[in-house]
Amino acid sequence: MNYNEDDRRFMELALMEARTAFDMDEVPVGAVVVNKGRVIGRGHNLTETLNDVTAHAEMQAITAAANTLGGKYLPDSTLYVTVEPCVMCAGAIGWSQIRRIVVGASDPKRGYSTVVSRPPFHPKAVVVTGVLADECASLMRAFFARKR
Amino acid sequence: MNYNEDDRRFMELALMEARTAFDMDEVPVGAVVVNKGRVIGRGHNLTETLNDVTAHAEMQAITAAANTLGGKYLPDSTLYVTVEPCVMCAGAIGWSQIRRIVVGASDPKRGYSTVVSRPPFHPKAVVVTGVLADECASLMRAFFARKR
Repeated sequence: MNYNEDDRRFMELALMEARTAFDMDEVPVGAVVVNKGRVIGRGHNLTETLNDVTAHAEMQAITAAANTLGGKYLPDSTLYVTVEPCVMCAGAIGWSQIRRIVVGASDPKRGYSTVVSRPPFHPKAVVVTGVLADECASLMRAFFARKR
Repeated sequence: MNYNEDDRRFMELALMEARTAFDMDEVPVGAVVVNKGRVIGRGHNLTETLNDVTAHAEMQAITAAANTLGGKYLPDSTLYVTVEPCVMCAGAIGWSQIRRIVVGASDPKRGYSTVVSRPPFHPKAVVVTGVLADECASLMRAFFARKR
């Protein structure tokens, strides 16, 4: 297991963001950015509310984190996200220079790994998967079951 | 040649956006979204000004176009962009369902085609390349020469 109790705790915060999205009838994905043990950005999917396909959880969290730090690069930060990022968000994570990416559930349909030949992250970035994966995935399943 | 006089005209508008970025000391990329012959969104790179790695020209133009139309999908629109989109922007173009993507200069370092195993665009999307490529590329070269 390549994650620790802190990782579970921050993924729980990302899950709270995802639940907020769920309650707003948004696809329930949440993200937080953590720097030196402190949450510096958080976000959840807002594509319907903002009428904007780019308003994914990770994009909100990265933009918020850069605002908090006053610099657009986040090399010393960790991103926690409840569902595997899409290729757009993976690209944004790469531009941000985030070096550690902690993922809850995988996304075999829309995840970046279905599209890329090499991950667009920083060359030294580490990806950790499967943190609270069941909780993250079951929230997605509940959302899409409700839509049917 | 798979582009026409209108394509050149709209790429010229995208180039005007790129020149605005250049004058602001931003990486000179510009984009416009056109729907039924009308510009419904435009943007240029603003990553320095907004302190936000996600503030690429295409992201601004897509968000603006969705605001103009009042709907987040743009299946009947064409995106013009002066430089080959990065993988983040390619992902956003895919989510927007834009069906026609007209590109100026290619980007052999950061373009989406260097990263993906299949383009993340709508399955029916058509990509046209090389429209005013020399003008688009020379603006980029002038920018990076100035930085050295």
